[in-house]
Amino acid sequence: VSHLFVIGLGPGDRSAMTGQAVEALRQADVVIGYSGYFACVADLVENKECLALPLTQETERARLAVERLRQGQAVCVISSGDPGIYAMASIVLQYLAEEELEAVTIVPGVSAVNAAAALLGAPLGHDFAVVSLSDLLTPWEVIERRLNAAAQADFVLALLNPRSHRRDWQYGQAQDILARHRDPETPVGVVRNAYRPGQAVEVTDVGRMAEVTVDMFTTVIVGNSQTQRFGRAIVTPRGYALVAGRSRLPSGT
Amino acid sequence: VSHLFVIGLGPGDRSAMTGQAVEALRQADVVIGYSGYFACVADLVENKECLALPLTQETERARLAVERLRQGQAVCVISSGDPGIYAMASIVLQYLAEEELEAVTIVPGVSAVNAAAALLGAPLGHDFAVVSLSDLLTPWEVIERRLNAAAQADFVLALLNPRSHRRDWQYGQAQDILARHRDPETPVGVVRNAYRPGQAVEVTDVGRMAEVTVDMFTTVIVGNSQTQRFGRAIVTPRGYALVAGRSRLPSGT
Repeated sequence: VSHLFVIGLGPGDRSAMTGQAVEALRQADVVIGYSGYFACVADLVENKECLALPLTQETERARLAVERLRQGQAVCVISSGDPGIYAMASIVLQYLAEEELEAVTIVPGVSAVNAAAALLGAPLGHDFAVVSLSDLLTPWEVIERRLNAAAQADFVLALLNPRSHRRDWQYGQAQDILARHRDPETPVGVVRNAYRPGQAVEVTDVGRMAEVTVDMFTTVIVGNSQTQRFGRAIVTPRGYALVAGRSRLPSGT
Repeated sequence: VSHLFVIGLGPGDRSAMTGQAVEALRQADVVIGYSGYFACVADLVENKECLALPLTQETERARLAVERLRQGQAVCVISSGDPGIYAMASIVLQYLAEEELEAVTIVPGVSAVNAAAALLGAPLGHDFAVVSLSDLLTPWEVIERRLNAAAQADFVLALLNPRSHRRDWQYGQAQDILARHRDPETPVGVVRNAYRPGQAVEVTDVGRMAEVTVDMFTTVIVGNSQTQRFGRAIVTPRGYALVAGRSRLPSGT
């Protein structure tokens, strides 16, 4: 049946995929995605046509997916994490004609942010903001404004794409902004390759976060004024006003 | 084996659970959660001890879970969505002793925010903030400051717990704040009971968002200056600077 699924594979380990995503792959005639994503679903895509494209060819993947849909195929576009969060869903939708929307299903997944948080404990127990530090397609002024706003309003902050080979100063700038608004001892969690080979989880603080090595596979979660360090974990209580200082009283519902 | 899993069931439909969450349930001796969550995993918890507690007894669930861990059981605490996002993970961790952390695994899930976004298209294609409108444990001034900051800094905004029987004015106030910073035609998606019986998806705009019925099972996603309405869907392009007005050009990587 002619259909286009845009699915999230989750953070990388097969066990973090949803049943719905597995089923969409099973039904597909053709699977389209970044070449690096096929390894973890190799058995599911055997005997299927696989169009594995390099990174940076997101628009070409979307174009191909819509072309194959129009040819009557069952198409599955694979994204890591959740396809709706800085990923393929918005790009694919921008290639469609409006009347084709009925033939498209976005299958949500466990995002890099949720995965990093789980490995750190519970840093996202309260309001949070997610900001990509990549200024390739977003002016740095916009990113800076968001970092300032989130820091001032005491959001827990998840930073994606903190650094790449070509972008080496943005993460340091982010620290500068955060240090203006947060206590230097505010807990910061740094997760690299969540649920993948080479997984590394580190807990540091706002004062020292720039000393940690980060890259495109790293998610950084910066606590807010309520976030507490707890051994190797970070916890942001669900209750705000009721949790005083470092008391570890439960926060209730 | 004595262990404590805190798992996310996803938005409600069994197909949105991850393999890791299913496996944690299979291994459990005792399963603890809100009574309403057991129905969707009934076959997985047959022949297991199930402690089903009413809503508002989150701390009691956490206390019981840690007590059972200390008795040497394999314990599974179930949360809807992702257990790290306004859910059981932070509460359970606050009941633990530090040396017990090694016996705990947080299993991430598809959160209500990711699920609502998938049903709406791709509203979270760029930086976003998540704010709960419940002021039961958070002073309204804090929530208001976050809404203002996120609105000013052009974050896409996901609003959780917009209204309950006892809290009837917060959602209207949120609209007032958003209307000060956003064009009234900015798309707003309203998703009730995502992936559950009674699922309802509606697209409106900032000017009219208060006319839509919302409750504790509703997630509201408010677009930013770049978000576009596209038939029954909402799309926030991944590229920021390069997407001009309502052009539907792909945004590239």
